[in-house]
Amino acid sequence: MLIKNSLKNLCCIFLLLTFAAQVMAQTKPAPIMIQEQGSFAIGGKVLTNAEGKSFHGDHAYVYYQVPVKPHKYPLIFVHGIGQFSKTWETTPDGREGFQNIFLRRHFSVYLADQPRRGDAGRSTVADTIKPEFTEEYWFNRFRIGEWPNFYKGVQFKNDQETLNQFFRQMTPDTGPTDYEVYTDAYAALAEKTGPAILITHSMGGPVGWQTLLKTSKIKGIVSYEPGGLFPFPQGERPEETKTKTRMAEATEISMSKFMAYTKLPIVMYYGDNIPTVPGNNPHQNDWLFRLNLAREWAAMVNKHGGNATVVHLPEIGIYGNTHFPFSDVNNLQIADLLSDFLKKNKLD
Amino acid sequence: MLIKNSLKNLCCIFLLLTFAAQVMAQTKPAPIMIQEQGSFAIGGKVLTNAEGKSFHGDHAYVYYQVPVKPHKYPLIFVHGIGQFSKTWETTPDGREGFQNIFLRRHFSVYLADQPRRGDAGRSTVADTIKPEFTEEYWFNRFRIGEWPNFYKGVQFKNDQETLNQFFRQMTPDTGPTDYEVYTDAYAALAEKTGPAILITHSMGGPVGWQTLLKTSKIKGIVSYEPGGLFPFPQGERPEETKTKTRMAEATEISMSKFMAYTKLPIVMYYGDNIPTVPGNNPHQNDWLFRLNLAREWAAMVNKHGGNATVVHLPEIGIYGNTHFPFSDVNNLQIADLLSDFLKKNKLD
Repeated sequence: MLIKNSLKNLCCIFLLLTFAAQVMAQTKPAPIMIQEQGSFAIGGKVLTNAEGKSFHGDHAYVYYQVPVKPHKYPLIFVHGIGQFSKTWETTPDGREGFQNIFLRRHFSVYLADQPRRGDAGRSTVADTIKPEFTEEYWFNRFRIGEWPNFYKGVQFKNDQETLNQFFRQMTPDTGPTDYEVYTDAYAALAEKTGPAILITHSMGGPVGWQTLLKTSKIKGIVSYEPGGLFPFPQGERPEETKTKTRMAEATEISMSKFMAYTKLPIVMYYGDNIPTVPGNNPHQNDWLFRLNLAREWAAMVNKHGGNATVVHLPEIGIYGNTHFPFSDVNNLQIADLLSDFLKKNKLD
Repeated sequence: MLIKNSLKNLCCIFLLLTFAAQVMAQTKPAPIMIQEQGSFAIGGKVLTNAEGKSFHGDHAYVYYQVPVKPHKYPLIFVHGIGQFSKTWETTPDGREGFQNIFLRRHFSVYLADQPRRGDAGRSTVADTIKPEFTEEYWFNRFRIGEWPNFYKGVQFKNDQETLNQFFRQMTPDTGPTDYEVYTDAYAALAEKTGPAILITHSMGGPVGWQTLLKTSKIKGIVSYEPGGLFPFPQGERPEETKTKTRMAEATEISMSKFMAYTKLPIVMYYGDNIPTVPGNNPHQNDWLFRLNLAREWAAMVNKHGGNATVVHLPEIGIYGNTHFPFSDVNNLQIADLLSDFLKKNKLD
């Protein structure tokens, strides 16, 4: 009887402990095991003045983490306009971004601040910075809504602190825009890491396309809402990019250079609230233009034997994404698409 | 015979494996187990223009890591002039900095970029940035040597890539110097983390002294080569800080405010190549002035019941340190001093 009761008590304690462990597992994610982490400057120039004094600038600043048992290829993250590494870190609403999500999936992550941005602020060319009252513009441009209203069903948490964090994740350029400078640094980074996957966003899209031409180390490109400077073969720039206002949306390169894009898997994702025909919202119209251009470019790449795909998320039943799908409320779902892409193309 | 040989072979394999494991253990440090990591903006202001449009700026940007089983108090790192979080990350010669060293010792680390610096670049006040050819100046000022010569026995690796990384770990201000702005952000950070230890460097020294007056959450201050604005009680500014050139080395605050410095343990470390009497090197002379002033200030704090210590490293037999002891070649030894200080004062 005594033994029976003791056993019963032990069983109760065991069940309680199991329950407690389950509750803890739900509230506290597993630790991330980091084999190595650190930071470095990469690339850049050295100026020397008349007195022989030096100035080191135009490098990228890179923070990296290597988990235990990493996959073969690290992920190099390329942020977009006005952004820095924060794009890929904690989301504006305080959840884990792609940095942590892909560390947990055992990918090494390299988070860069491009030259003349954020921690890579030493620009070799002077510039002036002043507060720009453009937050409403970016709210609209990044398709969170039409200021001050959020889009219905948008995958962006509608509260003040989330917006506060979102606006503060921008940081000004400390020098003039220069794609040669940016891509020199990213190419140097790929040469340092060895074979890698490039994950780009927005204006980081064209940075990625141009970086590919400067290094043989990029094995795949995943681009979220790339915009600007789609590289078409000489003479094959689409008609609609020949107007003055759309000229910067495409560029032309030699066919031999263009062939580089046919040698690796490429996927481009676009979010929601992009209409099917132009309407009254100029931002939505711009994204429609870019989505269509991305499709034309992918078709051109594939016509020459490549493997480029455009995924318009609503077409596969994923709704409400902004210009930042990887940090939206459903970013785990977006991460799963990336994991599937890497697996399918034997890049994991 | 067959069995004997097999056993012998097994023994050989076992010894080889043991040896291989030892070699690996030497070359590959243990993984760091991170319970939580992420980033956020903290503090700052919101400007609104005549059209009602907003600008969020003057926050600090903070990257944090919490190891499994962390000590009670996190470490908040406050960088110095021209620097950003990199100060505490990988050293210029590519070894682990205080970020990793103290994660391995189970402290949570909060690495900030102060407002108007690095990733916290959104300044509410306009500014112009241009390349400053001051690298030789900083080489001398930071007591690595007298350009282009390194000090004999300096704890700084004498090679080009180390210097390259060192120069590139600076990034320009994106707005005017404003201690109120800096300390508002660091105080907001301490309020967010809860009770914490402040680890400051150089110009971060006075940032730390002033932050303490804005929050009750700081439980200890460790300052590496603090310089400028030592806060003396009203009317007790030392005579030698009354000249125009030395005015900014001290400041005066009410006695009631001053008493805050007597309520927590404080330690200040200074490195090598600081003479005992002024000589021909103006940088060395400045550091001698600051070292002496730090001693006067510590004496004042202690006279009023405090617990402040100045450690001039060569006096305890540690030689060759620059202005950056925590990233110098002997930074593990410097870290041990910090660990001892925390232990002795029950702050770990």
